Amino acid sequence: MQIDLIEIVGIIAACCTTASFVPQVMHTWKTKSVKDISLKMYGLFSFGLCLWLVYGIRIKSLAIILANSITLTLACSILLMKIVFNKKQDN
Amino acid sequence: MQIDLIEIVGIIAACCTTASFVPQVMHTWKTKSVKDISLKMYGLFSFGLCLWLVYGIRIKSLAIILANSITLTLACSILLMKIVFNKKQDN
Repeated sequence: MQIDLIEIVGIIAACCTTASFVPQVMHTWKTKSVKDISLKMYGLFSFGLCLWLVYGIRIKSLAIILANSITLTLACSILLMKIVFNKKQDN
Repeated sequence: MQIDLIEIVGIIAACCTTASFVPQVMHTWKTKSVKDISLKMYGLFSFGLCLWLVYGIRIKSLAIILANSITLTLACSILLMKIVFNKKQDN
């Protein structure tokens, strides 16, 4: 199975944009501080990722399903921490 | 030109995940506070978007080029604000 160079670029791109949320999850979990993070961003972003997941399942694209389910998990954990830690900061 | 429903879902997904960075740009511009934002995330994310752009240009996909160039512009502006406002907060 010979993979084009450009497909390798696409795979690396998907890995980078997916993995990039890991440092934010770790940073937020460590600091428990979420003031500077936009709730609207992670809400809209998570909704968009859900649609990408529906799209990937419908067209049976394993790459789209894998990348977006991982990113959705990371984005939702940031969204959850934003909601939970926001409440704690308000009290 | 008849567009499948699932292609419309894909277009809405792309619009949501791209547009979702606008509230973060506005939030960061307004507050000038970047402590909670991960530099590593936006650095790796921007690098990944650059690769997506190379991929989109190479396979001549207008959708991938459009979505990723807009997201790259937004992600880079957050990255820039993170670097600039971080310095101001240190002084």
